[in-house]
Amino acid sequence: MPVKPADSVPSEPVGAGRGTRRQVLIGPDEAPNFALRRFIMEPGGNMPRHTNTVEHEQYVLRGRARIGIGDQVVEVGPDDVVYIPAGLPHWYEAQGDEPFEFLCVVPNHPDRLTVLGEEG
Amino acid sequence: MPVKPADSVPSEPVGAGRGTRRQVLIGPDEAPNFALRRFIMEPGGNMPRHTNTVEHEQYVLRGRARIGIGDQVVEVGPDDVVYIPAGLPHWYEAQGDEPFEFLCVVPNHPDRLTVLGEEG
Repeated sequence: MPVKPADSVPSEPVGAGRGTRRQVLIGPDEAPNFALRRFIMEPGGNMPRHTNTVEHEQYVLRGRARIGIGDQVVEVGPDDVVYIPAGLPHWYEAQGDEPFEFLCVVPNHPDRLTVLGEEG
Repeated sequence: MPVKPADSVPSEPVGAGRGTRRQVLIGPDEAPNFALRRFIMEPGGNMPRHTNTVEHEQYVLRGRARIGIGDQVVEVGPDDVVYIPAGLPHWYEAQGDEPFEFLCVVPNHPDRLTVLGEEG
């Protein structure tokens, strides 16, 4: 079926984060070049500073978060577009009382996630 | 700058469509593997039946539309996920009084769009 409600897709907890779940909306088994995922971060949730070996193209759907990308810290909200190049350290902290929800597209390449220390 | 509001990105009319504009939120000059675009179709707008040589991974942000994918016709709305394989005929018709807005991710490969006749 080529159309599905995002809410119908199962979610799984993100191991590296707190209060954060991930849905694979269109996965590497369904499409040849890249995967479309949705992240839902509950109020108070976060993802620690980390790197990936693949880039991220992201679009904020709902809620607000502080995010760190390299040396920059930015507060983002609905309809903000975020690009995180491969290898650049980044982190997320949900803000406010609503879940922070965003789409994240990654290439269908092997990814390695490395959690960094505060000084990492 | 790794973060930008989608509304800050210029839009251009989609030649094959009516009442439809496209924004390239993250383009092939900015990211290596795929491009993130947003389409905004005004009430009454459409895109005729056509094929592309690249696949589409789409996410509906706002509004409603009837879309045709191959032999199927589906009405879609917010938070619906749509996958259109390369080469499969598809079309869009905005429904209702609100603009129909969706994200569309494509690989950074050459694309050829072919508009099909009613019987094409």
